Amino acid sequence: MERIPILKLGGALIVTIQVDMHDRLAVALEEDLTAMIARTGARGVLIEISALEIVDSFIGRMLDNIAAVSRVLDAETVVVGMRPAVAITLVELGLTLTGIKTALNVERGMAMIRARLDEEDAQGPGSARGHDED
Amino acid sequence: MERIPILKLGGALIVTIQVDMHDRLAVALEEDLTAMIARTGARGVLIEISALEIVDSFIGRMLDNIAAVSRVLDAETVVVGMRPAVAITLVELGLTLTGIKTALNVERGMAMIRARLDEEDAQGPGSARGHDED
Repeated sequence: MERIPILKLGGALIVTIQVDMHDRLAVALEEDLTAMIARTGARGVLIEISALEIVDSFIGRMLDNIAAVSRVLDAETVVVGMRPAVAITLVELGLTLTGIKTALNVERGMAMIRARLDEEDAQGPGSARGHDED
Repeated sequence: MERIPILKLGGALIVTIQVDMHDRLAVALEEDLTAMIARTGARGVLIEISALEIVDSFIGRMLDNIAAVSRVLDAETVVVGMRPAVAITLVELGLTLTGIKTALNVERGMAMIRARLDEEDAQGPGSARGHDED
């Protein structure tokens, strides 16, 4: 089981991190997510990290990378389910995950992604995908 | 990371199996799912197994158990994402997963759960849940 499964649901992709991440697995996840965004036209990526007891600079960089690449492909990344203790440690370490949106849980994260989709729908097709305003 | 995260989304719980299951982990998953169904009132459980290269009788029994316990708590279990090769092997082994519903992917699985919820809503509260008046 050398790859992390990516679930497609509505306009979003959902990934649950539940194994220790290492270099190769992180690269594979980034590649798989990118390919899947391109294939499915997903507009949001939800990364659930409630299983993680530590978010160090390696994980932080991986999340940053995923968010940056997704953004280029016009998908928004939301990290959800972070444990309170992890959040405290992150801030203490000075890792504030700038560039990544976070939400308390999957439902709120999905709501964020849906809100963005609804907003763009309201603006009409094309207007939001070209010169993204936000 | 000794527990498998359970995501709550709408009226459903979503579990992605991506590590090798062993006895203790299977028991923990069953307990966690049961507790979470009771706490959240979830009406469906989606188990995504696309990462599994083998579904043997141990995994089959675990899925059966989860489905049976969930049913008692009035939640429907749908197993999704099974690899084609796994399906072939299952049938060859005579493990047909009776008592478990399956769907091709998460979206179809969620649709099955939503259809059930809609049907019950249409019948009016109380009628489908038996003696539960929520």
